[in-house]
Amino acid sequence: MVDGSTKYEDGGSVNKVSNKQEIKALIFDVFGTVVDWRTSIINECEKLGKIKNIQTDWHSFADKWRGKYGPFMEKVRSGSLQWTNLDSLHRMALDELLIEFNITNLNEGERQNLNKVWHRLMPWPDSVSGLTKLKTNFIIGTLSNGNISLLINMAKNAGLPWDCIFSAELAKAYKPDPIVYKTAVSLLEKDPSEILMVAAHKGDLMAAKKVGLRTAYIPRPLEYGPNPVTDTDTDDAFDIEASDINDLAVKLQI
Amino acid sequence: MVDGSTKYEDGGSVNKVSNKQEIKALIFDVFGTVVDWRTSIINECEKLGKIKNIQTDWHSFADKWRGKYGPFMEKVRSGSLQWTNLDSLHRMALDELLIEFNITNLNEGERQNLNKVWHRLMPWPDSVSGLTKLKTNFIIGTLSNGNISLLINMAKNAGLPWDCIFSAELAKAYKPDPIVYKTAVSLLEKDPSEILMVAAHKGDLMAAKKVGLRTAYIPRPLEYGPNPVTDTDTDDAFDIEASDINDLAVKLQI
Repeated sequence: MVDGSTKYEDGGSVNKVSNKQEIKALIFDVFGTVVDWRTSIINECEKLGKIKNIQTDWHSFADKWRGKYGPFMEKVRSGSLQWTNLDSLHRMALDELLIEFNITNLNEGERQNLNKVWHRLMPWPDSVSGLTKLKTNFIIGTLSNGNISLLINMAKNAGLPWDCIFSAELAKAYKPDPIVYKTAVSLLEKDPSEILMVAAHKGDLMAAKKVGLRTAYIPRPLEYGPNPVTDTDTDDAFDIEASDINDLAVKLQI
Repeated sequence: MVDGSTKYEDGGSVNKVSNKQEIKALIFDVFGTVVDWRTSIINECEKLGKIKNIQTDWHSFADKWRGKYGPFMEKVRSGSLQWTNLDSLHRMALDELLIEFNITNLNEGERQNLNKVWHRLMPWPDSVSGLTKLKTNFIIGTLSNGNISLLINMAKNAGLPWDCIFSAELAKAYKPDPIVYKTAVSLLEKDPSEILMVAAHKGDLMAAKKVGLRTAYIPRPLEYGPNPVTDTDTDDAFDIEASDINDLAVKLQI
């Protein structure tokens, strides 16, 4: 073990983790950080639209579907909706969306299959190679608001080589509730400082940091398409900033 | 999907699962079924004995350590001990055992490391190849009384290619408590009949069967060494019987 944590600049990007050897496990946010939900949804919906003769703006459809994610989770967080997993929240949002987009010709089986598009999201180009490298030196796992079955199916479909699947579902609470991070820490049986939370979203990382985890920020400026709606500026609140998961492996000296 | 389940004989061993295509996920007991705990413990202890100049019967030591597993779990099941994970139960058992074997020259770090031998158990010769084949067609996961961190470390050390790690720890109860199997079913979001429980122990399989899972029996006559102390006779209570995990892949037509 290397002791101490000294801030230094590494190739121009933030890297405060000089004691990388103390990091034992990396847990990843998934939607946006590891997989490109927007392109995946648009591509599948465009195919479905051709088959079912639906003309609509699938880019807007994808964005609005994702847009309902926060408000639906907030219902669970606030207690106005009892614990409901993400598949079910996605389905509730989808049913609203089909009305809003006046899409009326999908039967129940087709709706169920469309809702499962979240199980079939494709990785960013760097994700599989980067995770494969990281897996040689660290435990790598998810820490996602997606439910376990969604994350398992996604991993098998996309070839994501997780060692373990942690989910908000295990805590029956959604990130950024501290209990979600604490549950993963407890199951890994490591000191929080031995665990690196990796995410494209600053709120997720700030919540992880509050419970003592290390943090790695991977901005994904294309997550919301060509006109980013989120802040992807460099932020020295985090221990590491990497341009993608391959770069994270470099930063962690794999 | 193929409907119906017709019992038939396949190569002389029991195989009632004609509708194999309905099986989506396989969950495995681990100690004894996937890994050879006894040989692994004996080998590590013999090495430790040489280093620390401890002469004792390590075969008996390994058997007695495993022998304390049931009674310690029973304390949790009966409520006389609050939820305690398997690492901690192993440690409580180890501390008793070191007194019983009059081993007095292990310091705290050495005891901790010895207790972690359960994280370093080696697979049976067929386990990695069999699981690798099964993984191409099915979700494969653990359903073990071992805690999550133990199972993750074991998988990384032994090269077990799990898609998911399920553990008694998630239910805070030990097999054969039905809640352990039900928790895995719930997280997989599958019908119990789509899940095959694989184990070398009939009690585990009977408990899984009671909650509706399919069952595959893989007798491991050498689990307890050359003089087996458990019943490993063929039993037609189970859907499939296979001689090892490679044979299970054959029986499931991989």
